Amino acid sequence: MLEKIAAALRAAKSIAVMPHISVDGDGLGSSLALCMALVNMGREAVVYLEEEIPAMYEFLPGRSMVKVYDGNVKHFDVVAALDTGDIKRLGSRAKLLEVGSVTVNIDHHNTNSGFALLNYVDTEASAVGEIIYNMISLLKQSIDSSIATCLYTAISTDTGGFRFSNTTALTHRIAADLVDKGVNVSEISRRVFELTSIGKARLTGEAIKALELFDNGRVAVIVIKDDMIARSGAVEEDCEGIVNIGRSIKGVEVAAMIREKGNRQVKVNLRSNGDTDVSEIASAFSGGGHKRAAGFVAKAEVEHLKIELLGHIEKALKSN
Amino acid sequence: MLEKIAAALRAAKSIAVMPHISVDGDGLGSSLALCMALVNMGREAVVYLEEEIPAMYEFLPGRSMVKVYDGNVKHFDVVAALDTGDIKRLGSRAKLLEVGSVTVNIDHHNTNSGFALLNYVDTEASAVGEIIYNMISLLKQSIDSSIATCLYTAISTDTGGFRFSNTTALTHRIAADLVDKGVNVSEISRRVFELTSIGKARLTGEAIKALELFDNGRVAVIVIKDDMIARSGAVEEDCEGIVNIGRSIKGVEVAAMIREKGNRQVKVNLRSNGDTDVSEIASAFSGGGHKRAAGFVAKAEVEHLKIELLGHIEKALKSN
Ligand SMILES: [Mn+2]
Ligand SMILES: [Mn+2]
Repeated sequence: MLEKIAAALRAAKSIAVMPHISVDGDGLGSSLALCMALVNMGREAVVYLEEEIPAMYEFLPGRSMVKVYDGNVKHFDVVAALDTGDIKRLGSRAKLLEVGSVTVNIDHHNTNSGFALLNYVDTEASAVGEIIYNMISLLKQSIDSSIATCLYTAISTDTGGFRFSNTTALTHRIAADLVDKGVNVSEISRRVFELTSIGKARLTGEAIKALELFDNGRVAVIVIKDDMIARSGAVEEDCEGIVNIGRSIKGVEVAAMIREKGNRQVKVNLRSNGDTDVSEIASAFSGGGHKRAAGFVAKAEVEHLKIELLGHIEKALKSN
Repeated sequence: MLEKIAAALRAAKSIAVMPHISVDGDGLGSSLALCMALVNMGREAVVYLEEEIPAMYEFLPGRSMVKVYDGNVKHFDVVAALDTGDIKRLGSRAKLLEVGSVTVNIDHHNTNSGFALLNYVDTEASAVGEIIYNMISLLKQSIDSSIATCLYTAISTDTGGFRFSNTTALTHRIAADLVDKGVNVSEISRRVFELTSIGKARLTGEAIKALELFDNGRVAVIVIKDDMIARSGAVEEDCEGIVNIGRSIKGVEVAAMIREKGNRQVKVNLRSNGDTDVSEIASAFSGGGHKRAAGFVAKAEVEHLKIELLGHIEKALKSN
């Protein structure tokens, strides 16, 4: 199938490449890399985003090929969605898919709905960046340092910097080849993993202060309230990842972040070290997720919810 | 030279392997991996440490081969120091080196003093783990999942999880091979990078609260006082890495951590994003280091020192 897609790209004159909305390092890096290879082949290629390039990825090469989609219908010989599990994740750009001559879907999410004419979904790939690495080779294009930088960023993002369990031997082999092509490893790592805003840093400080341990340190709970965000100069998105503070403490088996958004609205993120299935806890509150990461929303007073949640967590801990 | 060392190891019956004091993931992982390979060859091999295995590395296989050195002189056919730039970094175990028939020094520090009979120093190696990977191949021993786990931990530690600029294509190629041999990437990463004590987490919170920005956010300073450590339930070693909090904030070019240890004793760590040479700033206070990481100690009142330090930093910023 990847060869079929390569043939379609070779036959096309104009190609639109689109990652999912709220684009991340894999979606953007893969799209830019593919687009650069296509331009090197003399094709007319463009990356359409639903939004501006996030500030943290502005360092990526190939930004001149990126357009924020203006909503106008425009025909392309091939329209390719990358890193996009569902057509809804294309937002308004789904229109381009409707009028494209050949539609392509290259992804690694196991929930992919196969919404295109040509679908290639490799759930073993740590990142779509790995698949595009192979695609560029099928297209017989060389990888220069710009393409290598985009692909390394893609793979680095989706593996948490070669730390998640999706990191395979092949992941490292591709990374090795990309470093050979000229990648600034420390610069990419700094951009993707290290740099944080002062607001997010301050919120992290507030979160640590608010962190409570229960059950002899086996459970960590952080409640984030509006005033903490305001005091920190943080924004709502800065709550992302806060739950991992609890999970990173030695001895903690289950970590929860409870985000209290005024008027009895709460959003809860749960993480486990793998021994406890937090998706079961979340489902007791009509939420869902995976064994190690789950969540739910509820209408409840935060202190009551916390006690109820702790009850469920304790039961889950005891049963394993 | 590596072949010569391999020949010496092959010829030996008894071998002592020693990493540097305050052993880290590279020192311990490399030593355990070499020792396991030697035991697989039927040699009598032991890893001598100056101290107990740090709790964070207790998950490493091969712990039964580790002895905390008791200070008694004992003869070995080969005594090999690993990851040890200077004989002083062996502590009391230097005695074993004195009475060993053949002494070996395998390292990657460019300051290595070449203190043994057979010295192999490869400053291009990201970790001694890379060198031991080659050594095990020279010894014609296979790498099982235990050895792979030790070597992956070694390399992962010294590259900051494949994030530092010492990460090369070869680093990734070796990592790929180790993953093939059976390494639990996410478990190692969690042990080495994620798990922290509640004391260190609380100190991080205090540090963020104490963080001050100067020069329109180009300079970050964190002062750590005794009461902050006490309040956090932290220990002195938990100050390690605190300076990186400042460095991780967007826009910060120079970060400083000032550790005030009562009675006008201060210890200062400096980090730069690469544009400013902080070793020059440190040398103004009779300290030293590298362009991106430097430090010094001084006898001074902390507020006075901070003002003086900021003056030097501002000058350094302006001149680049
Ligand atoms: Mn992805
Ligand atoms: Mn080392």
